Parts: sequence; C-alpha cells; structure tokens
Amino acid sequence: MKNILIVGCGLLGSSILRRIHKKKITNKIFIYEKSISNISKIKKLKLPGIIVKKLEEGVRKSDLIILCTPMSEYKNIILKMNEHLSKKIIITDIGSSKIETSKIIKKFLRKDIVWIQGHPISGSEVSGPENGKHDIFENKWCVLIKDKDTKKKHLTMLSNFWNKMGSKITIMTAEKHDKIFSITSHLPHLIAYNLVKSAQDFEKIQNYDLIKYSAGGLRDFSRIAASNEIMWRDIFFNNKQNISKAIDLFIKNLNSFKKDINSKNDKSILYKLIQTKKVRSKIIKLKQDVSKPDFGRS
Amino acid sequence: MKNILIVGCGLLGSSILRRIHKKKITNKIFIYEKSISNISKIKKLKLPGIIVKKLEEGVRKSDLIILCTPMSEYKNIILKMNEHLSKKIIITDIGSSKIETSKIIKKFLRKDIVWIQGHPISGSEVSGPENGKHDIFENKWCVLIKDKDTKKKHLTMLSNFWNKMGSKITIMTAEKHDKIFSITSHLPHLIAYNLVKSAQDFEKIQNYDLIKYSAGGLRDFSRIAASNEIMWRDIFFNNKQNISKAIDLFIKNLNSFKKDINSKNDKSILYKLIQTKKVRSKIIKLKQDVSKPDFGRS
Repeated sequence: MKNILIVGCGLLGSSILRRIHKKKITNKIFIYEKSISNISKIKKLKLPGIIVKKLEEGVRKSDLIILCTPMSEYKNIILKMNEHLSKKIIITDIGSSKIETSKIIKKFLRKDIVWIQGHPISGSEVSGPENGKHDIFENKWCVLIKDKDTKKKHLTMLSNFWNKMGSKITIMTAEKHDKIFSITSHLPHLIAYNLVKSAQDFEKIQNYDLIKYSAGGLRDFSRIAASNEIMWRDIFFNNKQNISKAIDLFIKNLNSFKKDINSKNDKSILYKLIQTKKVRSKIIKLKQDVSKPDFGRS
Repeated sequence: MKNILIVGCGLLGSSILRRIHKKKITNKIFIYEKSISNISKIKKLKLPGIIVKKLEEGVRKSDLIILCTPMSEYKNIILKMNEHLSKKIIITDIGSSKIETSKIIKKFLRKDIVWIQGHPISGSEVSGPENGKHDIFENKWCVLIKDKDTKKKHLTMLSNFWNKMGSKITIMTAEKHDKIFSITSHLPHLIAYNLVKSAQDFEKIQNYDLIKYSAGGLRDFSRIAASNEIMWRDIFFNNKQNISKAIDLFIKNLNSFKKDINSKNDKSILYKLIQTKKVRSKIIKLKQDVSKPDFGRS
C-alpha cells in the first residue's frame, strides 16, 4: 500500500491516522476534512499527514480511501470522487450500519470501483481529532462486509490493513451486521438517550433537582447519551427497520417486567434477574469489557 | 456512640464495618449475619468486629443498629428485635426505597423506638463482604428521611455518623426520595436488565452469537444488570407505583423516538439527541461520575 486518504478526520479518522503513522504503514497519508475547526485542531495537534484542500487532490494520489465521515455524507462524497477515481483504488468506510449505505454505494459509485465496507467496533462518547488514539482499535473487532460480488483478494487486503490497526477481523453480510448491531449497539444507544430524556422530562414535571443523585445508575446511561448526534441520527435512520423491531421486543419485555412488578410475581422476576446476570461474566470472559467492579471507576 | 450492630454484612454492611474500624468511630462493632458463606468470608478476610450468633445478643449490647440486609428481611428482623430493644437505641437502615419500609417499621416496630431511615447512594454490581471498601461512601450522597415525627437530635446524630463514613448528607421525605430514585436509579436498573434480557431473546431467535460484539454499547448495561437480584427485586416491588409511572413515561418517549426514526424526522430527533447530551456534562460538573471518556476504561 502506497498512499492512503482519510476522508473525515474526527475521533476515528484521526485514530486511524495516528496508527498508520505510528506503525509506518504507508508512504503518504492525505487528510480531507470539511470542518474548519477540525482542521485547525489537526494543525495545532501537529498530527501527521498532508491536509488536502480539495477532495479530488487526495483521491488522485491515493490507493486506499477510508471514509470516516457521518454516513449521511457518503452520497455527496461519492459524487465528488467518481470522476477522479482510478480503477486500482480501493474504498472502505467505518460506518456503523451497512444495508442503506451499500444501496447508496451501489447506486452512485462508478461500477468499476471496489468498495469494501468496514465497521471497527470502537468509539467513545467524545468526538473530534483531539480525542483520537492510536490504540483505539487494539483487540477490538472490525467487521468487514462480504456480499456476492466481494473478491477474496480485496477482503484479504483490508483484513491486513485492520490487523495493522490492532483489530481482530470478522466477516459477515450487511444483513447480519445490521441485525446484530441493532441489538448490541443501536438499541442500547437509543435506550440511553431515551432514559436521559425521560429523566429530563421528569425533572421538569416534578421540579426536582435530580441529576445530582445520578450516581445510582443514571450516570452510566448519560455517558452513551452524550455521543455524537449526527452520527447517531444517521445510524438510527439507516438501520430503522431492525431498530424498530428491536424497540418492539424491548417494549414487550418491559411490559412483562412491569406486570411482574405490579403483581409482585417473585418467581418470574427473579428468574429474569438471575438469567440476565450471566451475560456480564460472559462479556468479561470474551474480553469485551474490563473485569473490575464499577468499570474500575472508584 | 459506644457500640454499633451491623445486621447483614454484605457489600455495604462490610463497607460500614471497615470504615467504623478505620476511623475508630466506636468501641465495639457487632455483626449479625445469616449467611454461613458470608460468615466464613468475614472470618477469612479477618474483618474487624464481633460476630454474634443470635441477633438479640448484638441488639442488647448496642446503641446504634444498622440494617444492611435486603428490605424483604426487615419485618422478620423487627419482630425478632422488638423485645430486646432498649428505649435509647437508634435504628437505621440503608434500603434503596423508603415508603413501603416505613410502613413496615410503623406497623411492626415497638412504638417507643426511634428508626431514622437512611440511603447511602453507593454500591456496585458485585456483592458480598469480600467486595466492601472503607471508602465506598466517600463524597457520595447519603439521604436521611424526615417525617413529621422525626426529631432534630436524631437526624443530627445520624448526619454525624454518615459524615464520618465520608458521605454528604441530604434530608428529604420518603415520598420525595422514592420519586427521585425511581428515575435516577430504579428505572435505569430495570432498563439495563430489560435490555440484556432483550439481547438474550434476540440471540435465541436469530441463533447469532452476538454477546461477543457487545463493546458497542451493550456491555455498559450488562454491568448494572449483574447487580444483586434479591436486592433489586425488593426495590422494584417496594417502589412499584413510582417505577410503574416511570416505565410509562419511558415507553411514551421511546415510541416518540421510534416515530422520529421511522419518519426520518431530522429536526425532532436531533433536538432530542442534543438536549440529552447536556446531562453528561452536568453530571460530571456535579462530580457524580469520572470525567475521563469511556469511564477511563481503555
């Protein structure tokens, strides 16, 4: 791999940038970033890479393009890139939902260009290039999307790239991806936003100053509910069918809990609480979270 | 204060025990613990204090009794203690909901005995005396409950005690307490249990191995959903009216989010996501959580 263009240099774009530089993965790294504020941060932080003023400038000089922008930007970026792309170029992205973006890609990208979709399961509630870290992908999953047209050599090439980023690779279809992450990521985020929204509503109705008592549980949700709103709007809209089904399942189960509580159904509720407890130890065993109680916070 | 009896020596009981010993708050500490497994842990850990075999033994020798058992035990403990209580004794507890337990206390406790209800906003997903810590209450709120019969001298005495535990004191009615914590603690726990339950159901329906992809959000909920099931059953049952209302508000808001998502209502969803984001910085400013991104986990 010779040259890489990173389109969108926020939290994850700048993390990829830092990692490429640290591991000396490529000759040149180009950065295309729309936000003036982000550009001045990148300069101030003295991040590696060459900032290009025009997208096509980076596109023409690169072998690999990585889109790290909100998914709602993909269409415009594709339309801008199309005429400047050479056939040898490979495009990838890090978007958190896949079916809708694959439709955009199929519809608007030049037919002779390869785009392998990717999704590193890494992130944070904070955004921007100042929060990126070279080790953010370390030992985290990176999903690569395979459809009927995907060639093995392209998957291998991108697997190698993400291995160098520190990731473990898993390959699946866009359909499977969007189903799995509707439950393990998209619904949890929506639920966190919704819980904080409900607390805010309650605070207004009751006129209580309740946020100061949030250490008993609410604070955990507030972290996720502080995530970037543009990114999450795009995810919710792009994966709306799966998320809608997940919401229905969630409400069905919540009503069942409500019934247990209102009827003081001891046996039913204890069974549920004991069953759910098992997931935590499974998650820790799979190294998907730290093992320390309370995330090692206190 | 001369002697203190701790009834129930799990996570919080043993934390109080450690703190009393560390700060040399009292002459003697008695421990009454029903669980044989906990008693052997206390002995193995060489925790301070005298383990009494019979509850009345500790009751007769103490000036302050602190109940640290699940709330469903209160009635039995009161009935066992009643005839052994001297009039000078003060009883308190650390239960997480207050109206129902105040009814139990009023109904079963001898009329000449003072019980001031307390609730330190401290805890963890892990239980047992092996997980207690002397500084678990440090800079955390401790709610003391005041009703029309509460005497100032008793509140002062207990405020002093909890200050020595490291807590900040706030005083409110049982009604206000149960409303506030239905939103900041009880609903978040229920929602976490419910989300993990929904993920388990989904995993079964789809036959996907999805827990391994939980780093994108689910893992945070799994921590809370690993909390002690007896304690949480008691809280849900004891505060069922407020929790039921909180569930209704939550479902109403979730359906509104669903509508935004299905109709791709950009303006409405962005407004919500931006508003909820503000709570996080408020929580950090109020020192209710660590300020590091991702709880400083990675």
